[in-house]
Amino acid sequence: MDLQQEIAQSIVQVRAKKPLIHHLTNYVTVNDCANITLAIGASPVMANDINEVEEMISYAAALVLNMGAINPGMAAAMLATGKKAKILGIPIVFDPVGVGATSFRMEIARRILGEVKPDVIKGNAAEIKSLAGRRHGTKGVDSTADESDIETVAFELADRLNCIVAVTGKKDIIVSSSESCLVENGHEMLANVTGTGCMATSLIASFCGAVPNYFTAAIAGITVMGVAGEIAHESLNSTEGTGTFKIRLFDVVSTLTEAKFNERARLSFSKEGKINAD
Amino acid sequence: MDLQQEIAQSIVQVRAKKPLIHHLTNYVTVNDCANITLAIGASPVMANDINEVEEMISYAAALVLNMGAINPGMAAAMLATGKKAKILGIPIVFDPVGVGATSFRMEIARRILGEVKPDVIKGNAAEIKSLAGRRHGTKGVDSTADESDIETVAFELADRLNCIVAVTGKKDIIVSSSESCLVENGHEMLANVTGTGCMATSLIASFCGAVPNYFTAAIAGITVMGVAGEIAHESLNSTEGTGTFKIRLFDVVSTLTEAKFNERARLSFSKEGKINAD
Amino acid sequence: MDLQQEIAQSIVQVRAKKPLIHHLTNYVTVNDCANITLAIGASPVMANDINEVEEMISYAAALVLNMGAINPGMAAAMLATGKKAKILGIPIVFDPVGVGATSFRMEIARRILGEVKPDVIKGNAAEIKSLAGRRHGTKGVDSTADESDIETVAFELADRLNCIVAVTGKKDIIVSSSESCLVENGHEMLANVTGTGCMATSLIASFCGAVPNYFTAAIAGITVMGVAGEIAHESLNSTEGTGTFKIRLFDVVSTLTEAKFNERARLSFSKEGKINAD
Repeated sequence: MDLQQEIAQSIVQVRAKKPLIHHLTNYVTVNDCANITLAIGASPVMANDINEVEEMISYAAALVLNMGAINPGMAAAMLATGKKAKILGIPIVFDPVGVGATSFRMEIARRILGEVKPDVIKGNAAEIKSLAGRRHGTKGVDSTADESDIETVAFELADRLNCIVAVTGKKDIIVSSSESCLVENGHEMLANVTGTGCMATSLIASFCGAVPNYFTAAIAGITVMGVAGEIAHESLNSTEGTGTFKIRLFDVVSTLTEAKFNERARLSFSKEGKINAD
Repeated sequence: MDLQQEIAQSIVQVRAKKPLIHHLTNYVTVNDCANITLAIGASPVMANDINEVEEMISYAAALVLNMGAINPGMAAAMLATGKKAKILGIPIVFDPVGVGATSFRMEIARRILGEVKPDVIKGNAAEIKSLAGRRHGTKGVDSTADESDIETVAFELADRLNCIVAVTGKKDIIVSSSESCLVENGHEMLANVTGTGCMATSLIASFCGAVPNYFTAAIAGITVMGVAGEIAHESLNSTEGTGTFKIRLFDVVSTLTEAKFNERARLSFSKEGKINAD
Repeated sequence: MDLQQEIAQSIVQVRAKKPLIHHLTNYVTVNDCANITLAIGASPVMANDINEVEEMISYAAALVLNMGAINPGMAAAMLATGKKAKILGIPIVFDPVGVGATSFRMEIARRILGEVKPDVIKGNAAEIKSLAGRRHGTKGVDSTADESDIETVAFELADRLNCIVAVTGKKDIIVSSSESCLVENGHEMLANVTGTGCMATSLIASFCGAVPNYFTAAIAGITVMGVAGEIAHESLNSTEGTGTFKIRLFDVVSTLTEAKFNERARLSFSKEGKINAD
């Protein structure tokens, strides 16, 4: 079975296993994260208080740490839950939202990288470069970092942290220290709805909770979101905009089949640690 | 007038009275709770800080205590608001979300039962059994508890706490210490959207704010959600999934008439404290 | 160019400039605020922790302070961010949600007015009258204050605080100390969806981030929301209710053109500080 077939089949696996995905996330998109987790066939739990997270994580098949609207209480809960997840062998997906924007965010991200050691990191080029220490003097909340050398940066980060790095942008790149995949799915309208990045992270975690290979799980999550964006956009008539588009994302993900995924996915794999993203 | 007629008429009453429903709830589904409250004709207020909840509750016709993403600050606010509501004679609807999952949650639920004394408790079989002390050794966040003896457990809990107990599951059961009602509405797709349980709780509170009988109010809330799930599901075409389904729930509830409710509701009442849920 | 033309053109300007709009807002409607900000062409950021807000605000083109589900931590963050925004010359839009309901809310609002000095205040008649000290003995969360003298109250408040005051109600009125505009757009169904008031505030801030005149920015925000409500309502069929209506709001705003705005807007301006709102 080739890799794309394996990735397509993971949709069947997540629907069969219904893994519980524990989220520590932000108040802006938490409802969307829960609903996309349900749409792909997993089950969300969003408990986030320090008094119960270490007990709650024991039921979970994967953990999301999404740094959206972070605060010290949530950061402490993330560190506690993440460390417990690591001990229990539960995969951890980290989304360092806006990490380059403030020193507060950067410090929390550094602690999560160092103390929790996530299995998958997902971010845009600006966030990944910030984590990699490559954005001196260009702090901000924008996601429009130079993407020309992002592949190299992602490989270095994956190698240094021994994890999967998924970078979203005009083209999406998922790398391990030895493998890479270019995903040419998606639609620019995804940037006009809040939470599509957070939802991709929840999808990655849903797949991590159902399959043993976090590299293919990350590809599955990113690709499902991209395919959903394409199909949702194609379905719109001239009076429909971002409201209907968002609803269709859930429609597409909740009705997505292995066959439809295979028909749509545009994946390019490389074993040499060097992919052609041009 | 028979009971079902009385329940159907409560839709007219909530739209006429527009009761203010004070919610202390969770960040995952708070927006959905507010919108379903508006859809049935009531008015939501979501203030949750300890510095103002005791003043705010005085304007309300009913109170929701939803334990979703609970924390110590919210728990303290729930206890303060609940006690004040009790003094003022304002009905209190308690949703012990995930109560069996952690000892933190169980302790807060125990304090709410003991100190606030809710008028209605709504939960799935696992949550109701946990509250009743019947789930030793089966802790977890799943909602798939054995439902075979749930009717007996609900009656005992209703009798002991002198309140209405509404249990949701494959079939929904609402009991007082002397009456019971089996609701055979609903659709399994309701479980694929986050917040449908929370929304049912908000509907129950909306009815409690408009009619004096909390037993019929609880039946009305549960049945409206079930009917909405059925109609929403029937309206879907082959490309529509959980996104459109959720939107249709609000469409159905906001346009629901007494006649449509009567046409759809499948209610079986019993006065003997024993219903046939087979 | 007349004022209405200028206001219509601000839609083009916000889409071209994509201003970053920093929100300190409530957990009930935060997702809707982010999505309406994106729909009009601006970019939302929702960081709200005291440890980073003063750093984050430096990237923003406008600031929203929405008092929805306020608490002491958020209030402190609002004061800190607001003061920094003032120093940086970043326009501040204040939505004193439910200000008349509790003394806690009133005290926070007083501090924001006194210490932050917002550029635009947007509220319903009850909120504006509460801020103006005109609601002695009629505290509550209702929005049904007497609107007969609201124009006078709004002018006095605008003059005293040297800011723009936008009052929403059956008819919407926007005033500066010397100018006023009556907006006769909108639909009553907007009151049946939570967050439409918060979304109007986010739209005002989006325009404040793109054009130099906050009076016209406030008119633009209020009118866009009203026009969206009208078009969304017209699009509904007999089975569609508040669910579909809400989605269409985002559809309309995200596809709104200068021409469509001009075709729909019903604005009446006055330079004399006295408009005819009958």
